[in-house]
Amino acid sequence: MKKLIGRPGSVSGLALRLGQFGFAAAAIGVMVTSPGFSSFTAYCYLIASMGLQVLWSFGLACLDVYALTRKRDLQNPILVSLFVVGDWVTAILSLAAACSSAGIIVLYSRDLHYCNDQACSKYQTSIAFAFISWALSAISSHVMFWILLASI
Amino acid sequence: MKKLIGRPGSVSGLALRLGQFGFAAAAIGVMVTSPGFSSFTAYCYLIASMGLQVLWSFGLACLDVYALTRKRDLQNPILVSLFVVGDWVTAILSLAAACSSAGIIVLYSRDLHYCNDQACSKYQTSIAFAFISWALSAISSHVMFWILLASI
Repeated sequence: MKKLIGRPGSVSGLALRLGQFGFAAAAIGVMVTSPGFSSFTAYCYLIASMGLQVLWSFGLACLDVYALTRKRDLQNPILVSLFVVGDWVTAILSLAAACSSAGIIVLYSRDLHYCNDQACSKYQTSIAFAFISWALSAISSHVMFWILLASI
Repeated sequence: MKKLIGRPGSVSGLALRLGQFGFAAAAIGVMVTSPGFSSFTAYCYLIASMGLQVLWSFGLACLDVYALTRKRDLQNPILVSLFVVGDWVTAILSLAAACSSAGIIVLYSRDLHYCNDQACSKYQTSIAFAFISWALSAISSHVMFWILLASI
């Protein structure tokens, strides 16, 4: 039970955190270079949410590197409880941000047929990155919840 | 561990299912009576997602009533695995639908300042009901996941 893929302080856990960090950073990068994003509240919220994801994943990636180099065990219940709460909050916020932005893209491209410029394809790329970051974050959340329940 | 609030086959579990069913049905009812909802893909998706929530919650509410009247135990691992998968799928779809619709409402009301008719307030009410239904569904999902992990 304790040798789950993606657990904190393991190579797979570090890879998962780096994936979340990378895709969230890419989502922010693509969105802030798209013209006119700031006139959409949902896109600003996407940037804020991905910013939180970047900070959280980077922090935990550093902790994973520390645990791997010093051979420390990060699986004590208090630390795992903190990871569970943080992971769930970031995962739910990421999904909410990606979906609200996706709702607007679908509105413009399918309902209003008003989405054929370069900005629109950049918004779509950014949202796709946000969804990938959410999927990796959802895996982490489930692994952490599993480890927490196994340890209490 | 097995006496969790909201577990299948208990009065609290039945109340949770009836709450999910009621709010999802209310979300559909308010949305289909709003004029012009069908020209928005996200609102149609909200109706589809809440329709799935209604069917799923109604089915599980019937199972809870059966278990309560016949004093049956529903907590065997295979049945709980099925509940976990169904609950997670409906919870994620509900959140995605509520957020994508909320993204559009925010776009119209805050960004475009084009949201002061009666239809708009009906959309908002429907989305609020969808969020409440998702919150109840998220509680069920976590309880089911907890029970599944405790039983294996």
